[in-house]
Amino acid sequence: MDKKILVSIEGLSQSHRERIVSAATKNGYEVFFSQDKAEAEALARDAEIIFSFLAELSLNAPKLRWMCTPSAGINHFVALGNFPVDRAMLSNSSGAYGLTIAEHIVMVMLSLLRRADDYAEIVNRREWRRDLDIQSIYGSRITMLGTGDIGTEAVKRLRAFGPKSINGVNRSGRNPQDLYDKIVTIEHLDDILPETDILVMSLPSTPDTHHIMNEHRFSLLPEKAVIINVGRGNAIDEKSLLPMLQSGRLRAALDVFEQEPLPVDSPLWDCPNLLITPHASGNTTLPHTLDRIVEMFLEDFERYCTGKPLLRQVNLNRGY
Amino acid sequence: MDKKILVSIEGLSQSHRERIVSAATKNGYEVFFSQDKAEAEALARDAEIIFSFLAELSLNAPKLRWMCTPSAGINHFVALGNFPVDRAMLSNSSGAYGLTIAEHIVMVMLSLLRRADDYAEIVNRREWRRDLDIQSIYGSRITMLGTGDIGTEAVKRLRAFGPKSINGVNRSGRNPQDLYDKIVTIEHLDDILPETDILVMSLPSTPDTHHIMNEHRFSLLPEKAVIINVGRGNAIDEKSLLPMLQSGRLRAALDVFEQEPLPVDSPLWDCPNLLITPHASGNTTLPHTLDRIVEMFLEDFERYCTGKPLLRQVNLNRGY
Repeated sequence: MDKKILVSIEGLSQSHRERIVSAATKNGYEVFFSQDKAEAEALARDAEIIFSFLAELSLNAPKLRWMCTPSAGINHFVALGNFPVDRAMLSNSSGAYGLTIAEHIVMVMLSLLRRADDYAEIVNRREWRRDLDIQSIYGSRITMLGTGDIGTEAVKRLRAFGPKSINGVNRSGRNPQDLYDKIVTIEHLDDILPETDILVMSLPSTPDTHHIMNEHRFSLLPEKAVIINVGRGNAIDEKSLLPMLQSGRLRAALDVFEQEPLPVDSPLWDCPNLLITPHASGNTTLPHTLDRIVEMFLEDFERYCTGKPLLRQVNLNRGY
Repeated sequence: MDKKILVSIEGLSQSHRERIVSAATKNGYEVFFSQDKAEAEALARDAEIIFSFLAELSLNAPKLRWMCTPSAGINHFVALGNFPVDRAMLSNSSGAYGLTIAEHIVMVMLSLLRRADDYAEIVNRREWRRDLDIQSIYGSRITMLGTGDIGTEAVKRLRAFGPKSINGVNRSGRNPQDLYDKIVTIEHLDDILPETDILVMSLPSTPDTHHIMNEHRFSLLPEKAVIINVGRGNAIDEKSLLPMLQSGRLRAALDVFEQEPLPVDSPLWDCPNLLITPHASGNTTLPHTLDRIVEMFLEDFERYCTGKPLLRQVNLNRGY
């Protein structure tokens, strides 16, 4: 009897399915696709490999040896707890989202700097004004808080706009692909914030990054600085940020929030100087993103079948 | 008595004024700054040089020998007529707007491809949906209709997003800085439209470009193609474009229109799949833009004073 793979992911194309089945068959596996949650839970009981966002499928899967999540973050696995670490590996799809999130970052950065919302209001009133003061990426000092795949893909695009500087902040002090003008370690975050016109946050959710941007650090940023968060919501202390947006001291584009969905009574919904997107910067609706997720799964599947270490195995204790 | 320069431009900084006065004094000129139209008209009567958007100042300026407009286009001079070509030169500030318009192009391109308006509506309703199909610059086939300063600055930025191709269409067939994958001459526009996912139009207003994009040519574009116009409004036959936007056959971001301000009863205001901006892509509210305009004027002023040909003299008959 063939060994079993369960794939429970929305939006896969016919070609994605065919590629997975072909690789599986070659290696003596049978693939089951299911979007129905109850059906997926039943199939999980026999699965050696699960490829799904649904962390809970790991809880009742006695034959599980490897689970791959199409997400970059694994905080839903951490929150769920009880992943069978003694017998199964967990891998993520970090690296699939850099391209789409980088495009989001450039879009919201330009929208804030060029006051797209204010111009949209003018157009909604059928008025014709073109005299709003705007700003440019050109000549700006950009700080990337988080220099992983997302930060790095964004830097490659932002460089073409001629910013004054693009510096990075990370734990290791390493300069990925030498793309950054300067890297400072996270202990020196306070030193770089006063020289930051645009702060791009793409941090994973770990105990170290919880409320890393707090009232004190917001106050270190220059007047009118722009904050873009595409990492995890709890990296920002929203209660401290709110009054600084309301007063116009800072501006922000937030795609992630401390609580998601953003509660209906959150004061953020009506906050000025804030561009909200519903955790959509790195979804899987860009075909390229699902292509990469499937490619990366198949790459690790070949390694799994030949006993090599997975390229994207994660450490649940570390959180990434 | 000193020879006179009239400068009538809004938004000049103290430093801009000082630089102009310093260069003028060195060359035996006196500078008069005025934003008041009646006062500027009076000052124009004595001016040898006028630096202003206001074409009409040239009509009653018997001593005029050179007028420099801070705009890139000169259609307001063509429309006015009667510029004293027998005794005065006209120059423009083409080259000052490439940077700001390039940022506008990238912003609206990403906003259309990533459905920023649809996501904004979701957020306005305080809903939390992230499943809208989006598209990317990555892998797209881009055609630049117009390969001047604006097109070229845009290409430098767009290249970093990994499009499948960036081709250019111009009269000469020349490939500026070899930035384009391929250049086709304007006679072959029909051939390249079926291979165009994103069409960026940055043409000057000339008899040749009037309604260059018409019903036939819109129909040559692939389904859901994106059109961005930052050049002159009359390059597009709006009446033909309207139903294609209404049906969703095409999408567009228009910054310029056949009639400006866009008439209050224009059907374009409420048209779906259309992002309207009020001719704001290349205004002078980005400080860099005015910096460049002043720099370029001073560069040509030195040439004027030493009898060299101006770098940016325009030909009123040709229209640019």
